[in-house]
Amino acid sequence: MQFSAAQIALLINGKVEGNPEAAVGSFGKIEEATKGQLSFLANPKYEDFLYKTDASVIIVNEAQELKEPINATLIRVPDAYSAFATLLSKYQEIMTQQLTGIQQPSYISTTAKLGENIFIGAFVYLGENVVIGDNVKIFPGTFLGNNVKVGDNTILHAGVKIYFDCVLGKNVTVHAGTVIGSDGFGFAPQADGSFKKVPQIGNVVVEDNVEIGANATIDRATIGSTLIKSGAKLDNLIQVAHNVEVGNNTVMAAQSGVSGSTKLGRNVMIGGQAGIVGHISIADGSKINAQSGVSKSIKAPNTAVTGSPAFDYTSALRSQALSRNLPDLEKRLSELEQLVKQLLTERV
Amino acid sequence: MQFSAAQIALLINGKVEGNPEAAVGSFGKIEEATKGQLSFLANPKYEDFLYKTDASVIIVNEAQELKEPINATLIRVPDAYSAFATLLSKYQEIMTQQLTGIQQPSYISTTAKLGENIFIGAFVYLGENVVIGDNVKIFPGTFLGNNVKVGDNTILHAGVKIYFDCVLGKNVTVHAGTVIGSDGFGFAPQADGSFKKVPQIGNVVVEDNVEIGANATIDRATIGSTLIKSGAKLDNLIQVAHNVEVGNNTVMAAQSGVSGSTKLGRNVMIGGQAGIVGHISIADGSKINAQSGVSKSIKAPNTAVTGSPAFDYTSALRSQALSRNLPDLEKRLSELEQLVKQLLTERV
Amino acid sequence: MQFSAAQIALLINGKVEGNPEAAVGSFGKIEEATKGQLSFLANPKYEDFLYKTDASVIIVNEAQELKEPINATLIRVPDAYSAFATLLSKYQEIMTQQLTGIQQPSYISTTAKLGENIFIGAFVYLGENVVIGDNVKIFPGTFLGNNVKVGDNTILHAGVKIYFDCVLGKNVTVHAGTVIGSDGFGFAPQADGSFKKVPQIGNVVVEDNVEIGANATIDRATIGSTLIKSGAKLDNLIQVAHNVEVGNNTVMAAQSGVSGSTKLGRNVMIGGQAGIVGHISIADGSKINAQSGVSKSIKAPNTAVTGSPAFDYTSALRSQALSRNLPDLEKRLSELEQLVKQLLTERV
Repeated sequence: MQFSAAQIALLINGKVEGNPEAAVGSFGKIEEATKGQLSFLANPKYEDFLYKTDASVIIVNEAQELKEPINATLIRVPDAYSAFATLLSKYQEIMTQQLTGIQQPSYISTTAKLGENIFIGAFVYLGENVVIGDNVKIFPGTFLGNNVKVGDNTILHAGVKIYFDCVLGKNVTVHAGTVIGSDGFGFAPQADGSFKKVPQIGNVVVEDNVEIGANATIDRATIGSTLIKSGAKLDNLIQVAHNVEVGNNTVMAAQSGVSGSTKLGRNVMIGGQAGIVGHISIADGSKINAQSGVSKSIKAPNTAVTGSPAFDYTSALRSQALSRNLPDLEKRLSELEQLVKQLLTERV
Repeated sequence: MQFSAAQIALLINGKVEGNPEAAVGSFGKIEEATKGQLSFLANPKYEDFLYKTDASVIIVNEAQELKEPINATLIRVPDAYSAFATLLSKYQEIMTQQLTGIQQPSYISTTAKLGENIFIGAFVYLGENVVIGDNVKIFPGTFLGNNVKVGDNTILHAGVKIYFDCVLGKNVTVHAGTVIGSDGFGFAPQADGSFKKVPQIGNVVVEDNVEIGANATIDRATIGSTLIKSGAKLDNLIQVAHNVEVGNNTVMAAQSGVSGSTKLGRNVMIGGQAGIVGHISIADGSKINAQSGVSKSIKAPNTAVTGSPAFDYTSALRSQALSRNLPDLEKRLSELEQLVKQLLTERV
Repeated sequence: MQFSAAQIALLINGKVEGNPEAAVGSFGKIEEATKGQLSFLANPKYEDFLYKTDASVIIVNEAQELKEPINATLIRVPDAYSAFATLLSKYQEIMTQQLTGIQQPSYISTTAKLGENIFIGAFVYLGENVVIGDNVKIFPGTFLGNNVKVGDNTILHAGVKIYFDCVLGKNVTVHAGTVIGSDGFGFAPQADGSFKKVPQIGNVVVEDNVEIGANATIDRATIGSTLIKSGAKLDNLIQVAHNVEVGNNTVMAAQSGVSGSTKLGRNVMIGGQAGIVGHISIADGSKINAQSGVSKSIKAPNTAVTGSPAFDYTSALRSQALSRNLPDLEKRLSELEQLVKQLLTERV
C-alpha cells in the first residue's frame, strides 16, 4: 500500500511542509530509511540524519528548526514519536483486519463454533466443541484441543498448541510455538525409586489483553486452573507451572520461570532468566531482578529483590560489591593478623 | 460422561453415605467445586469447605467425623487422596483409550508400519520405515523422521518433532512442541575465526516410562546415542545436549540443561534453571539445587550441591548467609583496624 | 547404502589392510560399533578397543602399530579423525541432496517463487511473495509468512516458524521448532498500571552460514532489523530480543539470552544459560562464562567475564573461592576480635 504525505498528515492531524504528493509504502529508522519510506525524528541526538536520510517523508516535532536544506517532505505534529507510534498501530490493525477466511487444508470438527470475520490458516486443527469468537485470527499449523474457547479479537500465531479444556479471553495474543495446557510436572515417588504420574486434569485460563511470547510453556492445573490474569505480558521461552496464578499487568521477561502453585500479585516485574520456587506468594508491584532466584514469599508490596537466593535489592547490591572485593577484605584481615601477632609478641 | 455415587463407590471400594444416585461428570477442588462435580477431603485444613462446598459427591477418609449437616453424598474409603488419584488415573486412561483412528489429511509413508488401536491426528507426518507400536496416540501436527521407532502405549502430543533414526520405548509421554534428535552443537574452530560443522549422525534413544515436558530439546549424538534411561522425568524447556546420558528415574525440572557427553546417574534430582557442564559424571542420587551451575563431577552418591559454581549444600548455605552479611563483616573488620591502630599508637 | 573398504579408501585416499571387500552401511564409535559398521581410532586411550571391537572397517593413523591380531579391515591415513569427519560430511551431503520434490498436502501461495532442486515437505506453508533459493530443503510443518526470503542451500527443519518479511541467507540451517520474527517485547506503561503494545514492524535478517538450534526464539526489530551476522552459531532454546545484533562467528550456547538492542561483536563466546542486558555492546572476542549475567558493556576485546553480575574472569574466580571460604574468614575475624579484646583489657 502507498500513502501520500497529505493522506498521512490527515491521519495524524499534522502540517505538510514540502511535496504533499510524496509517496511512502513502508517505515524506516531515520538513520537507515530508504526512498519510499516514512520515518520520524524525536530525539535531537539523531538530528544530523534529518539532512542525510533518503526517507521520502519524515514526521517531526512542531518546533523542529532546520539548519540545512532538506530533500524529504516533513509533517509537523506536536509529538513526533507518539504520532509515528499511532501510525504503526493503525497499520498493524489494517493488516490484521484484512486477514479473513478459512484456508485449506484445515481440520475443523463439526462441533466447533466459529465467530464472524475470522481467519483460519492452513493446517489448523480445531477439536470437538471448540468455540472461536469474532475477529479471531489463527495462523497456520495451530492446534486447539477439544473444548478450547478463544475470545473475540484474539490472535494465535503459527504453530501454537493449546490442550483440551483451556480458555483464552479477548484481545489475547499468543506467539508462535507456545504451548498452553501441557501436563503439570507432578510425580509421586514410589518405594522402588520410580515415579508414578499424578494425573493433571485441570486447565489453563488466560484472561483478556494478555500477550504471551514465542515457544513459552504454561502447564494446566492438577485440579482447578492455572490462571494468567488480564493485562499480563509474558515474554519468549517463559515457564509457568501448574496451578500458578499470574496477577493483572504482571510482566515476565524472557526465559524466566515460576514453579507450581505460586501466586504472583499484580504489576509484578520479573527480569529475564529469573526463577521463583513453588508454593509462595509475591506481593503486588514487586520487582525481581534478572537471574534472581526467589525462594521465599515477598510480603511487602513494591519490594525489589536480586540475587540467587534473592534478597533486598539495596543490601544485595552492597553485599555483591563487597563480594567482588573479598580479596581486599582478606588482605586487610591478614595484615591485621600480623599486627596483632606483633602486639602479642611485644606484650611478653 | 456421568457417574453415580454408587458406581464410583464400586470402583474405589468405598461406602456411600447419602444419595447413591447423586451424579457427577467432572472433578473439582473442594474449595471451588460446583454442582455435578466430584471432590475429596484429605487435608484437615480444608474441613470447613466440607460444609460449604457445592460438590455433589465427596470422597472422605473412613474416620472423618462430621460437625455439621452436609448436602453432598459422601463416599468413605481408607485413604481419600489415594482413592481420588486412582479415579483421576482411570478417567485419563479411559479418555486416552477412546482416541483411535487416523485423521485426514495426514502423511504416512507407504513403508511405515502401524500397530493396533492407534490414533494418528491430522497433519501428522510419518517418514520412511517408521514403526509405531500398539496403542500409540500421536496428536496432530507431529513429525516423525525416517526410521523413527515408537514403542507400545506411547503418547506424542501436538507438534512434537522427532528427527530420523531416533527410538522411543514403551509408555513414553512427550508433550507438545518438544524436539528430539536435532543436531548436537558441534563446530570445529577454523584458522580464520569461522566454524566448520561437525556432522551429527548418532541418534537419541528414549527408554520406557519416560515423560518429557513441552518445548524441550534433546540433541542427537555425534556418533552413538544420546540416552534417556527408563523412568526419567524431564520438565518443560529443558536442554539435553549430544551424547548425554540421563540415568533411571532421574528428574530434571523446567529450564535446566546438561551439556555434551555428561553422564547423570540414577535418581538424580535437578532443580529448575540449573546447568551442568559437559564431559562430567554426576553420582546416583545427587541433588542439584535450582539455578545451580555444576562445573565438576560429583563422585559421592546422594551429594547435595547448590550455587554457581555449585558446591556442598550445607557449607554453601553458610557461605551464602555470610555473603549476605558481608557489610557486617566489613564493619567488624574496620572497627578492629581502628582498635589495633590505637593499640599500636599507645605502644609507642 | 553399503560401501566396501576399497571404495572408502578411495574416497579418503587411504591404504587398505585386510579384506578390501569388507562392507559397511553405517558409522559407530569404536567402543560400541557392531558388525557392518565403519569406525575410527585416533585417541591412543581407546587402542584396546581396536582388538575387541566388532566394527568391520576401521580408519587408523598411518603410524598405528598393532600389538595383537585384528579381525577388522583397516584403512590407514595420515589423520584418522579428520578422514572420518570428512566421510561423515560427505554422507550427510549425499543424504541431503537426495531430498527433492514437493510433498502433498502443502500450501504454496501462487505468488511464491521457488528455486531449483528444492525439497518442500508435507504441511509446509509458504505465504505470499515468499522466495526460495536453489537446493533449499524445507522439512514438514514449517511456516514461512508473507515476503520471507530464503537463500540457496538453506535447510529449515520440521516445524520452523518464520514471520512475514524476514530474510535468511545462504547455507543457513535452522533446527526444528525455532521461531524467527515474533514480536519484540515492547509495551509502554500506562497511568492505570496496564501496558500498551508498541507495534513491532521491523524484521529479522539472518546472514549466510548461520546455524540456529531447536526451539530458539529471535524477535523481529521494532523498526529496522534484528541481525544475525554470517557465521554465527546459536544453540537450542536461546533468546535474541528485538534490534539485537549478533556479530560474525559469534557463538551462543543453549538457553542463553540477549536483551533488546544489545550489540554483540564478532567471535564472542557466550556460555549456556548466560544472560546479557539490553542496550549495551560486547567487544569482539569476549568470553562470557556459563550462567553469567552481563549488566555493563564490555569495551576491551577478548575480555573474559563470569558471575552474576559478571566481572573480570580471573578476579571473579578469586572472589568466588574466598566466598566459599567465608566461614573460615569469619572465624579468623572472630579470633582476632578476641585477641584484640584481650589486649585492650590488659592495657588497663
